[in-house]
Amino acid sequence: MALKNLGHPAHRVGYDRPEALSQALASGAVNEAAKDLPSAVRDADLVILATPVGAILDLLGQLPPHLSPQALVTDVGSTKRLICQRAKELISGDPLFLGGHPLAGKESSGFAHADASIFENVCYALTPSSAEHMNDERVKAFVRLLETLRSRPYVTDAASHDLAVAYLSHLPQLLSSGLASMVADEVTEKRLPLELAGSGFRDLTRLADSPYGLWRDICLTNIENIQAGLEAMIQKLESVKTHLSDRELEQTFVEARKLRDRLREQS
Amino acid sequence: MALKNLGHPAHRVGYDRPEALSQALASGAVNEAAKDLPSAVRDADLVILATPVGAILDLLGQLPPHLSPQALVTDVGSTKRLICQRAKELISGDPLFLGGHPLAGKESSGFAHADASIFENVCYALTPSSAEHMNDERVKAFVRLLETLRSRPYVTDAASHDLAVAYLSHLPQLLSSGLASMVADEVTEKRLPLELAGSGFRDLTRLADSPYGLWRDICLTNIENIQAGLEAMIQKLESVKTHLSDRELEQTFVEARKLRDRLREQS
Repeated sequence: MALKNLGHPAHRVGYDRPEALSQALASGAVNEAAKDLPSAVRDADLVILATPVGAILDLLGQLPPHLSPQALVTDVGSTKRLICQRAKELISGDPLFLGGHPLAGKESSGFAHADASIFENVCYALTPSSAEHMNDERVKAFVRLLETLRSRPYVTDAASHDLAVAYLSHLPQLLSSGLASMVADEVTEKRLPLELAGSGFRDLTRLADSPYGLWRDICLTNIENIQAGLEAMIQKLESVKTHLSDRELEQTFVEARKLRDRLREQS
Repeated sequence: MALKNLGHPAHRVGYDRPEALSQALASGAVNEAAKDLPSAVRDADLVILATPVGAILDLLGQLPPHLSPQALVTDVGSTKRLICQRAKELISGDPLFLGGHPLAGKESSGFAHADASIFENVCYALTPSSAEHMNDERVKAFVRLLETLRSRPYVTDAASHDLAVAYLSHLPQLLSSGLASMVADEVTEKRLPLELAGSGFRDLTRLADSPYGLWRDICLTNIENIQAGLEAMIQKLESVKTHLSDRELEQTFVEARKLRDRLREQS
């Protein structure tokens, strides 16, 4: 959809469940709807796997016999270690795999919520299995394409990516869903009046609109890092609880505001 | 400022630190700048204490000799139990005290961030020390004033208010500051690339821009409820950590989305 809006000349072939595919075709997001996976990827220069992580792992098993030798295969999965490892085992010879993850999630899903501007001014993580792949002409062309969409490519390895997003993406999601679910219990047990929920509570629980289906795969494929993040957060909350009435709480606020300043500087 | 925009006929006298007071006068938010507290409240029909909680407690000690017998005194403090208890001890005879809390906080503070529309479509908690006070003509007039500002008055007792906001406001703030501060540590220790922070992390840490000064007083005056909220959250995160790979996590997501649906229904 973003490429269409830019008037990009690429011929875009889509393959998806029938209803999503017909919406994509009707909107012009794709020029052609493929009837099956082999015909979708045959002759493709660039194959983008954009499904939840579990389905990406499945697709990687089905793709190889149908890929053109000049194909670059990439994905948009939220965890990268397992996907890149599987791709390394399965995609060999001439086609090249490059792990990708646009940090552009939303709590809504489905074609109706598709947003062509979602890539603008967001970080797009790239996790090549070898740093040398960044010199491949296909990868260079893909990086230029991301820049055309006004994304900021960020090259890292799959393990570093997964550790970082455990703290920066997966933990925030679990805090948001956890807070909303815990408060739901208290509304029942202690008859908390939900009328007193202000904008802060709404902000913190917005991510809790996300469906479980997407997050099941993320949790399953990044479990150790997420557990470490949860443990660090539990330790932090224990410390806050102990120091509610002394100056150590001020230190937490000061460090937090400094981090927010750093976030503002980089965007 | 909101009353001015509505063309409300009330004469508005302000008293504050000199720089804030001159800004308020210049903007027309107040018609008159008082030189001291006694002259600010003398003859006033309505006295609104709008400072952090600790300063409200101090002001309650200074006000009584200067109040007109027909005065209604109210405040906008984020915790209500201690304020209402102190007011009950100090304000006796004809002037009446009504605890108030507009659920309209922002992470920014100071006159430069004043926003006349902040009361629109937000809950405004009222905590009378006796339910009968709601029949007092001064209280009825104040409730009508809030409705003119398009706030939704919500009458409750101070203890129920403080329990509810511990979960719905204070805990979200501490989660937000706690997450940002914990991630700041990990950025240093594990060299997490902050470039991979997406909109979810920004949403969850937005409240962490709030200054400690305001929150110190809130934590000090609602410590038991906040500790209970933190403990409930720690238990929830322990449970999430244990059940990352099984269906109990789905239950957390399902409950969380149901709560979000309820929030949408009421706003």
